[in-house]
Amino acid sequence: MVKVVKIGGNVIDNQAALARFVKDFAAMTGPKILIHGGGKLATRLAEQLEIPTTMIDGRRVTDAQTLDVVTMVYAGLVNKRIVALLQAEGCNAIGLSGADGGAVRATRRAANPIDFGFVGDISVEGVDADFVLSLVERGVVPVFCSIMHDGAGTLLNCNADSVASAVAVAVAKRCDTELVFCFEKAGVMADVDNPDSVIAQIRPQSYKTLLADGVVNKGMIPKIDGAFKALESGVKVVTIKHSEALNLECGTKIVL
Amino acid sequence: MVKVVKIGGNVIDNQAALARFVKDFAAMTGPKILIHGGGKLATRLAEQLEIPTTMIDGRRVTDAQTLDVVTMVYAGLVNKRIVALLQAEGCNAIGLSGADGGAVRATRRAANPIDFGFVGDISVEGVDADFVLSLVERGVVPVFCSIMHDGAGTLLNCNADSVASAVAVAVAKRCDTELVFCFEKAGVMADVDNPDSVIAQIRPQSYKTLLADGVVNKGMIPKIDGAFKALESGVKVVTIKHSEALNLECGTKIVL
Repeated sequence: MVKVVKIGGNVIDNQAALARFVKDFAAMTGPKILIHGGGKLATRLAEQLEIPTTMIDGRRVTDAQTLDVVTMVYAGLVNKRIVALLQAEGCNAIGLSGADGGAVRATRRAANPIDFGFVGDISVEGVDADFVLSLVERGVVPVFCSIMHDGAGTLLNCNADSVASAVAVAVAKRCDTELVFCFEKAGVMADVDNPDSVIAQIRPQSYKTLLADGVVNKGMIPKIDGAFKALESGVKVVTIKHSEALNLECGTKIVL
Repeated sequence: MVKVVKIGGNVIDNQAALARFVKDFAAMTGPKILIHGGGKLATRLAEQLEIPTTMIDGRRVTDAQTLDVVTMVYAGLVNKRIVALLQAEGCNAIGLSGADGGAVRATRRAANPIDFGFVGDISVEGVDADFVLSLVERGVVPVFCSIMHDGAGTLLNCNADSVASAVAVAVAKRCDTELVFCFEKAGVMADVDNPDSVIAQIRPQSYKTLLADGVVNKGMIPKIDGAFKALESGVKVVTIKHSEALNLECGTKIVL
């Protein structure tokens, strides 16, 4: 089973949480791939450089200056920090943008109805699973940031959750694959205010009930929808769990 | 013959010169590896962030903040831009810091007599030639920035010329290797003001004469000394030439 793990931005921003996650990820046995978000560092750097940050529906509008900022922060600082920490833990990581080795190609999002600038959308066809798995087979652990390219020389800012899903689905065409979303919460909660209310398993039928009862909150809906899409495309199981629980049997498992 | 090409900072700073170089590098036949300098972008970013830049003997004193800046600029912005441009030219490049795949390990420079901070020195033993050549054999072209790691989780700012030499010498233990330094001049000049005065070949004996006659200028001496060291360690030929002449038979060839 290849494990494709996505680590969210809030963990990246917290040095202690990141160090702990890196240790756990390095200790995780079996073939694995990491995809990391960006955290608030890019927004902070843009502020310092007096580049205005515009977010629409949670997506960063990425003009040329902002593309430079996210490329520096995600593909440079965050990616290399994580890779160096993993290497120190004995995990032979290799940091990748989509351009590296032609690993993942994205398509620039159309300027209508909203012009997001240098923002890309990911499809499974854009992932070179042969290349990614050739690294994995050599015991090398790919660590992706969410900066991809269009194949024509332009870098594109993409959504890390979408990168994780596309990579997992592409890999699932060759090997059994699990997709794990790690973040700062324990999983999908029946009661957001009660950390003990983690829903252990969600299946299509129970998801309908959770939606009808309004239990699943807004931000979680695209994540779970995405999870079902990945499952329908061949991923065996999608897990949503706390970044501190990577190697524990817990969190929310989403299965068909 | 594996060609290890170093491209200097002044070319990186000039978008037209870089685009032309990238096209030529992509068109160059045979196995190849690129090492790039950083250019003035890091100094400019540090200025914008009001981080003071201190240079001693041409080396950047690299405190923690400055390390973040050079990691963002060299490993992020410059490296990914070059890789995306090469991919657009049909060259399957992969951007690497020393931490990626454990490709190149450096040693932090001693704080005495001058504390350069997070600055590393490179040795041939630090280069994982097996890994680098495994990429080359698959038709993938490694593109190194000069950010390396110590293997214990710390990134180190290194000299790109030294990275190029160490990589070339490590590769030369397995295959015939040529080391090419590309910069904004036509080669080693008998008269710095006369671009037609390129010295076609330098051998140990003629180098002694050039030194005695004061023909070789200060900045060039460490480059040529380094070239002879690389030749003595197994590199077949070292060429110093203009970045616009990558695929032309010209420049200065240094041989034993």
